[in-house]
Amino acid sequence: MRILFLGDIVGRAGREAVMASLPGLRRTLRLDLVVVNGENASHGFGLSPAIAQDLFAAGADIVTLGNHAWDRKDLIGHIDAEPRIIRPANYPPGTPGQGSALVTLVDGRKALVINVMGRQFMDALDDPFRAVADILARHRLGVTVQAVVVDIHAEASSEKWAMGHVLDGRASLVVGTHTHTPTADHRILPGGTAFQTDAGMCGDYDSVIGMGKDAAIARFLRRMPGERLQPAEGQASLAGIMVETDDATGLARRVAPLRMGGLLAPTTPDF
Amino acid sequence: MRILFLGDIVGRAGREAVMASLPGLRRTLRLDLVVVNGENASHGFGLSPAIAQDLFAAGADIVTLGNHAWDRKDLIGHIDAEPRIIRPANYPPGTPGQGSALVTLVDGRKALVINVMGRQFMDALDDPFRAVADILARHRLGVTVQAVVVDIHAEASSEKWAMGHVLDGRASLVVGTHTHTPTADHRILPGGTAFQTDAGMCGDYDSVIGMGKDAAIARFLRRMPGERLQPAEGQASLAGIMVETDDATGLARRVAPLRMGGLLAPTTPDF
Amino acid sequence: MRILFLGDIVGRAGREAVMASLPGLRRTLRLDLVVVNGENASHGFGLSPAIAQDLFAAGADIVTLGNHAWDRKDLIGHIDAEPRIIRPANYPPGTPGQGSALVTLVDGRKALVINVMGRQFMDALDDPFRAVADILARHRLGVTVQAVVVDIHAEASSEKWAMGHVLDGRASLVVGTHTHTPTADHRILPGGTAFQTDAGMCGDYDSVIGMGKDAAIARFLRRMPGERLQPAEGQASLAGIMVETDDATGLARRVAPLRMGGLLAPTTPDF
Amino acid sequence: MRILFLGDIVGRAGREAVMASLPGLRRTLRLDLVVVNGENASHGFGLSPAIAQDLFAAGADIVTLGNHAWDRKDLIGHIDAEPRIIRPANYPPGTPGQGSALVTLVDGRKALVINVMGRQFMDALDDPFRAVADILARHRLGVTVQAVVVDIHAEASSEKWAMGHVLDGRASLVVGTHTHTPTADHRILPGGTAFQTDAGMCGDYDSVIGMGKDAAIARFLRRMPGERLQPAEGQASLAGIMVETDDATGLARRVAPLRMGGLLAPTTPDF
Ligand SMILES: [Fe+2]
Ligand SMILES: [Fe+2]
Ligand SMILES: [Fe+2]
Ligand SMILES: [Fe+2]
Ligand SMILES: [Fe+2]
Ligand SMILES: [Fe+2]
Ligand SMILES: [Fe+2]
Ligand SMILES: [Fe+2]
Repeated sequence: MRILFLGDIVGRAGREAVMASLPGLRRTLRLDLVVVNGENASHGFGLSPAIAQDLFAAGADIVTLGNHAWDRKDLIGHIDAEPRIIRPANYPPGTPGQGSALVTLVDGRKALVINVMGRQFMDALDDPFRAVADILARHRLGVTVQAVVVDIHAEASSEKWAMGHVLDGRASLVVGTHTHTPTADHRILPGGTAFQTDAGMCGDYDSVIGMGKDAAIARFLRRMPGERLQPAEGQASLAGIMVETDDATGLARRVAPLRMGGLLAPTTPDF
Repeated sequence: MRILFLGDIVGRAGREAVMASLPGLRRTLRLDLVVVNGENASHGFGLSPAIAQDLFAAGADIVTLGNHAWDRKDLIGHIDAEPRIIRPANYPPGTPGQGSALVTLVDGRKALVINVMGRQFMDALDDPFRAVADILARHRLGVTVQAVVVDIHAEASSEKWAMGHVLDGRASLVVGTHTHTPTADHRILPGGTAFQTDAGMCGDYDSVIGMGKDAAIARFLRRMPGERLQPAEGQASLAGIMVETDDATGLARRVAPLRMGGLLAPTTPDF
Repeated sequence: MRILFLGDIVGRAGREAVMASLPGLRRTLRLDLVVVNGENASHGFGLSPAIAQDLFAAGADIVTLGNHAWDRKDLIGHIDAEPRIIRPANYPPGTPGQGSALVTLVDGRKALVINVMGRQFMDALDDPFRAVADILARHRLGVTVQAVVVDIHAEASSEKWAMGHVLDGRASLVVGTHTHTPTADHRILPGGTAFQTDAGMCGDYDSVIGMGKDAAIARFLRRMPGERLQPAEGQASLAGIMVETDDATGLARRVAPLRMGGLLAPTTPDF
Repeated sequence: MRILFLGDIVGRAGREAVMASLPGLRRTLRLDLVVVNGENASHGFGLSPAIAQDLFAAGADIVTLGNHAWDRKDLIGHIDAEPRIIRPANYPPGTPGQGSALVTLVDGRKALVINVMGRQFMDALDDPFRAVADILARHRLGVTVQAVVVDIHAEASSEKWAMGHVLDGRASLVVGTHTHTPTADHRILPGGTAFQTDAGMCGDYDSVIGMGKDAAIARFLRRMPGERLQPAEGQASLAGIMVETDDATGLARRVAPLRMGGLLAPTTPDF
């Protein structure tokens, strides 16, 4: 299976880049599954149902979230009706929405996508390691599902690496989000799981992690509330990771980063 | 000026990779200045004076530190006698050592190297932005010094990006350390400063940020003290960033990541 | 000098209790100086200029603040014109307002009031210990000022106790705020400084630290944004501490807690 | 049932005060149940099996713990054999020891004691509210057990107040520990549960939360490792709370703080 994951889409700049490029990428990269993190798609804070719809229309199969999951109040009432939008699985029982989604491709192959959030320097959610284990206990990679993609939305690199190793051999791809900075450590772990600490953001990198520089800098310098943070509106880069898996095992055969447009050095998977 | 910065050297694996490769890199890349972060060089925790000496012998001009600066007690009494080892500048007044170092190259050019620590999710140090501004107030890039290199040792990507933009035009290179994960966002900011959110670590990537997997994972799963963390001892990758500056302005002309050996996809500056 | 300090006033319930009782307390307790923490006076979040005026009219000489200092935007433009409202002294240079105030009593005696904020589990401000030391370097207790009152607004009890000991002999009273819970450890430290870890709040204790129970509890249980937090509106308790100092030294002769009304066990200074 | 709870016992000073006074208090206060928090009993860090034995010999029925539960490695192998020592219930499954204990008094009445840890500003444990609910689901206050005592070991006052209200009517006493500072807010909540935000510590209050002043202060001023923290060795205060419950309902009839010896203003329950 050929899978593309794109990191946190930030604001209009990020959205437009995704919508302009994703349909073409789906074709040229012959993608079977596209997962995007949409927690900052609506003006930097949260995901509105309408914008989620745009992302699906552009070719996303599943949209994941993170600590900004509930910034848009209109999503709270909508998420239970839209299984293609998933929020971190380790929110407490009773939280709207689901932490995973099962996708059936047109050819019948199945992929399981899981979203989970780290706890180091973040909110006090349930144990992310047990949350993922609980979901995976209901599926078998290479048997009941041909691919498993895990978006670990976390601050600390250590927690993301640990998640990668814990899932090594049980997921096709473990990829981090949340720092809005792509890491250059894509690799296939010893057990066959593709891993990258952070996918990076889809947004304008002439910014402070996607938000306008002046207001964001002022918060560090002044330590008092200032101008509202607004997404930067310059040309966005797409940032993500592509994996090709072996359907027999669900493990990764090839992995490569994708970075296009904007200020990042470009790189496109060559497989 | 041709400058190489290498990120956090972790344990024996990281040290040996640096010592094996740096002499050759100094020649082949015609490096004028080499700065390495050594906060994890001594068995993952701190920097002993003897290991610092090894790093200098291998070709490092300056060794920077971070939150592990004082893990080795023998460094505390030594650092005032060794101006080539610097610790974050924003420790409170009276802290041993210096937060910056002025290097005079054999040809007489001068470079200023600054180490500073972020505060987001980290210890309550003094304001890193004012600490750097205070040091820069005594130097003029392109006039009194031909290069300024800033190692911002920080957890949060936002704080590192903010530091980059605040210093844009006033430093040759602003590079982050501490996450032990190289980022793929090397670029030259609009004002001419080269930037990369994190240099990555020089160490074994088959690990949890350089430390042995089992013990590190157990800390996330069990939430009680367990086996002591030990550096992973497999083949290390070097991870860093190279910059070529214009001596007339001190600003960056070219920037490229360097990643060699071990599990990272290799890349070497082509200039 | 006879000094009363009242902890964080929360919402209408807290304000009304202060306004109803303070004029009488000023007389019956023969108070020379009244300091109140007003960071939650305006509907739980911040202090409006009009409410500050009410507190002064009721008998407060100085109003201190804390991490909610800037919740009311109208205070930001007002604070420089009202030296009787002080914000934590360890905000960075350039922050509106002052971190201390010098009060001249009608009989000519002078009192210095300082507000400072802890950093443990709180925002990354400047060093509170150095901030207070810098202010105290310009005054001499028992010589240029007859009393020094320090409001250390902090989360961690350890940081507050440390501040008490550091200032022991150099302040008349060091009292904590922010936890909204009065502590039962009022005492005179060995050097003569009265100390209490937290003054407690002036507000309705049938609440979660002053705010309505249901919404506050829901945040712990559900980990997603819910109903807006609103101050509880039941009968408020006043909570604070009274000190009598020796004008010749500025040190404390007697200290006692004051707790009146509402759900707390009542206690009134008997001197 | 007549219940005494004593807060964190710190080091030799705290232990000796408990051992000297508790046998007499058991008699004079006609106590049926004594619970003490022992997380700092062994030189300030953890609880050794031998010291636990001393506390039982002095009259403690149950010893609770907290974030220092595992500082003494010899407790880890011992705790499963000693059901009278309990650790926070919200450690992950598989953690040694239990989070609650059922005590049968000599007259046959039963009391359930629960230890749980907050998460605000603390380690990422499981949800403390659900952990307590799970335990309480197996018991009925006033029916299967005559009393329920909950030690909520937490930093944030808000989390402790929230726990009190959530358990109001389902526990006899909810009392906080960890700040080492007794709060003056003992009361009976509307549903009949006695509550105090923090019991305070049993230790020397001429200290920084029980530890020697100089070393503790140096950590705030210098931000680098210094002298080892050692418990202060001056005369200790006992600090705790006493409750008398109605055996028919298990709810609190009377509540009063107990503070004896050392530097705290003394207070003894008069019932
Ligand atoms: Fe995020
Ligand atoms: Fe994000
Ligand atoms: Fe490091
Ligand atoms: Fe570090
Ligand atoms: Fe407050
Ligand atoms: Fe506060
Ligand atoms: Fe404790
Ligand atoms: Fe504790």
